[in-house]
Formats: sequence, structure tokens, C-alpha cells
Amino acid sequence: MRSEEDKEKLVNRLKRIEGQVRGIQRMVEDDRYCVDVLVQLSAINAALKKVGYSLLENHTRGCVADAVQHGDGDEAIEELMKVIQQFSRS
Amino acid sequence: MRSEEDKEKLVNRLKRIEGQVRGIQRMVEDDRYCVDVLVQLSAINAALKKVGYSLLENHTRGCVADAVQHGDGDEAIEELMKVIQQFSRS
Amino acid sequence: MRSEEDKEKLVNRLKRIEGQVRGIQRMVEDDRYCVDVLVQLSAINAALKKVGYSLLENHTRGCVADAVQHGDGDEAIEELMKVIQQFSRS
Amino acid sequence: MRSEEDKEKLVNRLKRIEGQVRGIQRMVEDDRYCVDVLVQLSAINAALKKVGYSLLENHTRGCVADAVQHGDGDEAIEELMKVIQQFSRS
Repeated sequence: MRSEEDKEKLVNRLKRIEGQVRGIQRMVEDDRYCVDVLVQLSAINAALKKVGYSLLENHTRGCVADAVQHGDGDEAIEELMKVIQQFSRS
Repeated sequence: MRSEEDKEKLVNRLKRIEGQVRGIQRMVEDDRYCVDVLVQLSAINAALKKVGYSLLENHTRGCVADAVQHGDGDEAIEELMKVIQQFSRS
Repeated sequence: MRSEEDKEKLVNRLKRIEGQVRGIQRMVEDDRYCVDVLVQLSAINAALKKVGYSLLENHTRGCVADAVQHGDGDEAIEELMKVIQQFSRS
Repeated sequence: MRSEEDKEKLVNRLKRIEGQVRGIQRMVEDDRYCVDVLVQLSAINAALKKVGYSLLENHTRGCVADAVQHGDGDEAIEELMKVIQQFSRS
């Protein structure tokens, strides 16, 4: 569903997040102040949420819309609703 | 504030999360189904939240309780409340 | 978009939530323990989220799917994504 | 723990929220557009969260700080952490 360009952008965002997670490991090892670590954790969560919402949009514009146009949107929408709830609670 | 054992456990949890973020990069590169990627993203978010809550507890039992006992809890509690809100919205 | 039956069910759920909010006012007036009030607030939030997710599903199955079938899904999906983010952050 | 003035303010905020919940019932009965109802629901959730965070702060400055100063903060902090998690997931 995704173009090579979209995939590359997504992977780059995930690599940056991976680097941020490694950064937190160093903060823990260096005994950095808890609140600073928590602020950094919040930033990672926010970045992952952003990635998730862009995947969600892509999925809705692609797979879900296709399914709806081919007359079998019911299942696709049910799955979509489940994953939205699971994702937004995480 | 943290014992060496606590720090090691925390770093190990973060290393596992780092591995999960790398796993998602592979899922994107391999064109895996969006919904599966989103479920995996939710799992990472949940794992980061768990790490965050355990840091939060540690911080409250340590720094915040100390500050309260030394009569300057006000500022520590204000900072705590701010980081709780920032973290739980992320 | 909604049947009379669906609307009645929805209004009844909202009336129950209204009653729960009144219940919390009494808890505050009666000086009930903070943590008990917070647990009750969490229950109301969870109930409102449930109402929201069922509205969201209805909307996607109705308006959004209709728009997609009539070839103008783009705008409907953009609006959907925005409201999902706003709602899940609340 | 709360002054009469604080209680009155809190009850007034809850009365406003109660009114907002009644407003949503009317929106449903009047067949208002789903997305508008969802935006309104998000506003109520945000208002309830604000009430919750101010209760949480009050509780921490009051009961929890008291418990810590009297040498039995452990239990109070454990309870605090539980309610924070329950509340922020709701």
C-alpha cells in the first residue's frame, strides 16, 4: 500500500525513536533526574503516537476505503475500530 | 536514588523496547499489514508507559517524599503533578 | 443516520452518566475520600469514552463509508482522523 | 481536607459538566452531526480530566504529604500510584 518514499520516511522516524530510546538508557545509567527521564519518555510516546496516527490514516485511506468500495467495508471498519481503541489506550 | 540492580533492570527493559522499535522498522520494510504494525506500536507504547509509571513511583517514594519530610514538598509536588499530566497525555 | 432505537439507547447512557456526575457532586459535598472520588471520575470518563467509540463506529459505517462510495472519501477521512486524535487525547 | 470555598468551586465545575452532558443528549435527539457530538464529548472528557488532576494535586498535598510526614507514606504512595494509572487510562 505504501510507496517506497513513504516507507523510507517512516523507517527514518522509527530510527530516530530508536535513538531516543537508547538516549534514555544512557540517562538511567548516568543517574539523571527522574523527572527529566519522564519528560523524555513522554516525548518518545508522543512520537510513537504520531507514527501510529499516520499509519492509521494511511490504512483508512487505503485498505478500509478499498474494502468499502468493494462492498465489504463492515469487517474492515470493525477491525479499524478495534485497533483505534487499542492504540489510543496505550 | 536508584540501586545498581534497579538501574540494570530498567536498562534491560529499555533495551527490549529498543528491539521492538527495530522490529517495527522491519515490519514497515517488509510491507506488513498496517493493523499488525499498529498493534505492535500499541505494545511498545504500553511498555514505555509501564517504565514511566515505575519511574514515577520511584521518584515519588524517593525525591518527593524526601522533600516533604524536609518541609519543602510544595515545589516537588508541583513538579510531580506537571510531569504526571504531560506523561499521561503522551 | 441513527435509528430512533439507537438514539434512545444513547440518550439513556448519557442520562446515566449525567447521574454519575451528580453523584460526584454529592461525594465532594459530603467530604468523601479523594481517591474514591477519583475512582468514580475514572468510571465516568470510561463511560464517556465508550459512548464516543460507539458514535465513532456509527459515523464511520454511515457518513464516512457513504462519502467513500460516492468518491469523496478524502475529506471525510481527514475529518475522521482529526476527531479520533482529539477524542483519544481527551 | 478541602475548604468550603474549594468544595463550592469544585461542585460548580461539576454542575457545568453535568450541563454539558445534558447538552449532548439534546444534540443526539436533534440528530446533530456525529463529529460535532464527538468534539463536544472530547471537551467534557477534558473538563473531567482537569477536575481529576486538581483533586489529585489536592490529595497529594494533603493526605499523601501528611502520611509521609507521619512515617507511613508507603501505603499512601502505593494507593496514589494506582489511582493515577487508573485515572490516566480512562
